[in-house]
Amino acid sequence: MSQESDKQRLRIGLCGVGTVGGGTMHLLNSKKSEITRRVGMTLEIVHVATRRPDPAWQDQGIRVSQDVFDVARDPEVDILVELIGGYEPAFELVMLAIQNGKHVVTANKALIAVHGNVIFEAARQKGVVVAYESAVAGGIPIIKALREGLSANSIHWLAGIINGTSNYILTEMAERKRNFPEVLKEAQALGYAEADPTFDVEGIDAAHKLTILAANAFGIALQFDRIYTEGISKITTADMAFAAELGYRIKHLGITRITAKGIELRVHPTLISERQLIANVNGVMNAVVVKGDSAGSTLYYGAGAGAAATASSVVADIIDIARAGRDDRNVSVVPPLAFSNLRNDIEILNIEDIESEYYLRIPARDRVGVMAKISQVLTNYGINIEAVIQKEPHGPDAEKGIVPMVILTSRILEKTMNVAIAVIESLDEVAGDVTRIRVELFDDERV
Amino acid sequence: MSQESDKQRLRIGLCGVGTVGGGTMHLLNSKKSEITRRVGMTLEIVHVATRRPDPAWQDQGIRVSQDVFDVARDPEVDILVELIGGYEPAFELVMLAIQNGKHVVTANKALIAVHGNVIFEAARQKGVVVAYESAVAGGIPIIKALREGLSANSIHWLAGIINGTSNYILTEMAERKRNFPEVLKEAQALGYAEADPTFDVEGIDAAHKLTILAANAFGIALQFDRIYTEGISKITTADMAFAAELGYRIKHLGITRITAKGIELRVHPTLISERQLIANVNGVMNAVVVKGDSAGSTLYYGAGAGAAATASSVVADIIDIARAGRDDRNVSVVPPLAFSNLRNDIEILNIEDIESEYYLRIPARDRVGVMAKISQVLTNYGINIEAVIQKEPHGPDAEKGIVPMVILTSRILEKTMNVAIAVIESLDEVAGDVTRIRVELFDDERV
Repeated sequence: MSQESDKQRLRIGLCGVGTVGGGTMHLLNSKKSEITRRVGMTLEIVHVATRRPDPAWQDQGIRVSQDVFDVARDPEVDILVELIGGYEPAFELVMLAIQNGKHVVTANKALIAVHGNVIFEAARQKGVVVAYESAVAGGIPIIKALREGLSANSIHWLAGIINGTSNYILTEMAERKRNFPEVLKEAQALGYAEADPTFDVEGIDAAHKLTILAANAFGIALQFDRIYTEGISKITTADMAFAAELGYRIKHLGITRITAKGIELRVHPTLISERQLIANVNGVMNAVVVKGDSAGSTLYYGAGAGAAATASSVVADIIDIARAGRDDRNVSVVPPLAFSNLRNDIEILNIEDIESEYYLRIPARDRVGVMAKISQVLTNYGINIEAVIQKEPHGPDAEKGIVPMVILTSRILEKTMNVAIAVIESLDEVAGDVTRIRVELFDDERV
Repeated sequence: MSQESDKQRLRIGLCGVGTVGGGTMHLLNSKKSEITRRVGMTLEIVHVATRRPDPAWQDQGIRVSQDVFDVARDPEVDILVELIGGYEPAFELVMLAIQNGKHVVTANKALIAVHGNVIFEAARQKGVVVAYESAVAGGIPIIKALREGLSANSIHWLAGIINGTSNYILTEMAERKRNFPEVLKEAQALGYAEADPTFDVEGIDAAHKLTILAANAFGIALQFDRIYTEGISKITTADMAFAAELGYRIKHLGITRITAKGIELRVHPTLISERQLIANVNGVMNAVVVKGDSAGSTLYYGAGAGAAATASSVVADIIDIARAGRDDRNVSVVPPLAFSNLRNDIEILNIEDIESEYYLRIPARDRVGVMAKISQVLTNYGINIEAVIQKEPHGPDAEKGIVPMVILTSRILEKTMNVAIAVIESLDEVAGDVTRIRVELFDDERV
């Protein structure tokens, strides 16, 4: 077949030549012969939409447009690669490409998380593929693992470090004992964080990705409006030090889990045992743990961002489409969200309805009997104390007679914990807000 | 499409109902409706070959044979699942199934590593798929990651803990400071090691798997006869303690790397920094690190053996074939060894031609000047000393006036190291054989 197929080619239209777009173009150009050896056909960029075209492109016979919609309207384009990011005009662009019978490859997590249901339905009707491996965890082929590699499994839960910026900041805070604002400023200077870091540090980017992972894990529709999101901006080095003393690290995790009550879908800072493999994923790196009923726990680690790593997954998606579409086959082999029929019999739980263990840091007045009072409140709500740290007062708070009391609790409904915290905060012996961080033990002490 | 496809079914013939076969049968039966939701068609076991049939099968309309070849001859079987293991009659069985136009799914690493080239060529000629995800690293979808997820990458190197038995034994030795024979005996009692443990502890099983991984990484033919294989049976707790003191752990690794000189293909005990993520993969777990030029380093972790984990990959392979073969498409989407044309322009290097850093443990006589003599020999061969441990003599060797001298060397050609070791062993100051373990630094200090 190779003789014949070598003459075939797949024509790519590229929208957006920023970091990832540039990386994708470089990869497709520099790997031409190797990709042909893999696919049995040639992948060729025929049309690029950008405001800053490279004069060399025209010599290579590449059409250049200022308007991305020109690519979606180009009858000579088989696959539109959307790398402009954001909700609009990306959504309109992708929908037009689908209407015109083009396959779409996108790295746009926001687009898929928010508009994916509409996009996949349109793609189904037109018989085209919309691929988005690069939208989650950059160069790690986690969507493929979920949809294909683990396809014999019912997934029980999934947890991941899926925002490199947050993980970089938390790692720096932990290793160099420096506070959040200081590390954020440095991360911005190094280019690891955006000028406006909200999407990263407030957990929105991770929430987009977890929405997509959960849909693939459980075969449910994308439900970004139902996710619970909390970022890392309130984490302090004091909390990190207390966590370390208890044998834990603080990581920003996306967690989704199917239970008899419904599906947990939440993104927040989390205490995890330092002995877990994922607790040792540091810097800008990402990792996702998937617990399936047959494979057990598997973990996938790699670069979650960057031009080259993201382009790796963009081009892998293009190669998948080329391989499946060879010999004039034109149907999606794998359903976009892992299942051909999505289930709608199970709800996403409100955060109040999840169960967790908790880390509490309570600013207590340095008085006799304060521990007894707080313990009594917890006991009243059926909450056991698993570990406590209470030290001699020191530092500026100490002068005011305030000592931090740190407690690890047993597993309890979040709703109950909310009430217990409110009662604790109302005690005369307590001088301010209680800091609460969820603790995740998984059900596998190694991964 | 789901309406129509639900009526379609794919007929499976299962050869071998041992641990993995039983797990596969259980999985296919217990996940029927979920798999149909994923695939859009029904997967049905229609024929089972085993010497111990379950009477219930006949009520389920399953044909039962004593002879595995009956399955390969059954015109009502679409996919033959080979789980009998070993070279023969597995090879003949798989070849007959291919000749009869059946797809094959196998968990048989020995078969693929040794006969894969012939098998894949026969499959290509008949237009059928031979899938073997379960042959390497059990439940971890590493073949899929290499062939598809990382398809945009040139792979530079790959290293893995790919034999759970060896990793279990080394973990127990390190954590509980117990010697190899003792831990092996216990592993056998627990069922983690076979009665004849040769394949596992002498590295042959890992060599089968690395042969397959290397072929997929570099797009070369399977070359099991060219691999360098060394097991863990000579590792001592003394070496583990010295390694720990230097900040290293000893793991049994499969390593393959493409260099300007050729391809390294080797399985042996290896010192790796305790700070690497893979150094923290313990017990029976497996992990593979892949370094690609675009994705960077990615790591895949999970259970490398066991009925359920292996069955997870067997059934994932069946689902892949079902998905690709739906709508009467009958062509392999992905080449069996990642590339449609394999390269034959690059040789597998002899172990003498690789470069590595080394750990040396030298039984030195407790005399003045011994360190100077040994250092001089190393210097003569261009080998630098990176670290040394030399302690006061104690224990039974000490009474004989022998002290272990431990040295970490700089990077050097193995051939040169062999000569240096021979010269060191010939010194009057040296009382016996030098223990040599290769040290792997990778080129990524985190993964």
